[in-house]
Amino acid sequence: MAQRVDPELRRKRIAEALWRVAVSRGLHDVGLREVAAEAGMSLGALQHYFPTKDDMLVFALEFVGQEADRRVRERLSSLPQPPSPEAVVRATLAEMLPVSPESRTGLLVHVAYLARAVHNPRLRAATVEGIQPLRDLLAEMLRRAAEHGRLAPGREPGAEAMALICLAEGVTNYVLLGTMTAVEGERLVDAHLAELFRGTAEVPGQP
Amino acid sequence: MAQRVDPELRRKRIAEALWRVAVSRGLHDVGLREVAAEAGMSLGALQHYFPTKDDMLVFALEFVGQEADRRVRERLSSLPQPPSPEAVVRATLAEMLPVSPESRTGLLVHVAYLARAVHNPRLRAATVEGIQPLRDLLAEMLRRAAEHGRLAPGREPGAEAMALICLAEGVTNYVLLGTMTAVEGERLVDAHLAELFRGTAEVPGQP
Repeated sequence: MAQRVDPELRRKRIAEALWRVAVSRGLHDVGLREVAAEAGMSLGALQHYFPTKDDMLVFALEFVGQEADRRVRERLSSLPQPPSPEAVVRATLAEMLPVSPESRTGLLVHVAYLARAVHNPRLRAATVEGIQPLRDLLAEMLRRAAEHGRLAPGREPGAEAMALICLAEGVTNYVLLGTMTAVEGERLVDAHLAELFRGTAEVPGQP
Repeated sequence: MAQRVDPELRRKRIAEALWRVAVSRGLHDVGLREVAAEAGMSLGALQHYFPTKDDMLVFALEFVGQEADRRVRERLSSLPQPPSPEAVVRATLAEMLPVSPESRTGLLVHVAYLARAVHNPRLRAATVEGIQPLRDLLAEMLRRAAEHGRLAPGREPGAEAMALICLAEGVTNYVLLGTMTAVEGERLVDAHLAELFRGTAEVPGQP
């Protein structure tokens, strides 16, 4: 009797193999064959789940996003409840920087993906879609902070949310390149947040 | 008699071929052979100048940087002389965003390079070195603006210079991915600069 396989588990295992390959040597010169070997399965078996490298990349990036979400929720659950909008912004940004082995790994996958996505409409669409919930969350938190008078005057929540994402992205690139240490990158983002919430007391537990 | 070849011209022609390939389909799956074909020369001839793909990438990135410098100087020469530190910062940032076909092209090369460089110590070192003059220039301009009381209070020129580079990098990624238009990206950077030079009149021609 053939062994029963949980397809979701199998896909996750493949994504983790891709992840390991992305971290150790990047995805530029890597094909489905190498990922299959890393996942300990045949090329045919892998192609049953992901017919093309792009299919695999889209899944891997979604997986990276879900893992980051999970870590943000963990961070937030350790704070006084309910966490303030500022605390949610800070926890989210922290997971967008390569400061832990987990976030660094996820961001290496993201960088590998980026270089391919700029040339590929399907991957681009997946990225645009993937960034929207993050944009919405940050904008909503900034809006709430503004309602409580805790956002610096003249700042537009939607634009500031996208600026935060862009800043974190740039900091990540330069930390991964070794231009800055992770600590310097964090400090830079902290300074930006301090300006954004300028003149407002930091009360992590306050709604 | 063999045709005489200017080696610098030849290297530049190869860099431009690499550039065209980077723009049209990215560099992830591209080898020296494809670039040689694009440059209209044999693989052997290309390898005389660039033995490896990394050699070629380092040169192409330097070339991208020089072209960007040239465009910044052109922008500045059209302003009242001497340009203010703010004007220099604005002109420099403008060339770091994919708003013109030239800067877009250069930035596509940069993105392709980035994905490889995070896994390659030699390419990383070239990037770190390449970013230093830009960092120094921006920090120096912000320092001069601060001396004239035209930098927002509490801002540290060195850190703000790096924040500008990171913000431009992130904006570039998301414009190339189609998450934002180039105009939205420019607006986002302009809003950041307006905060940085907050409460200061804009006098482009003033030193």
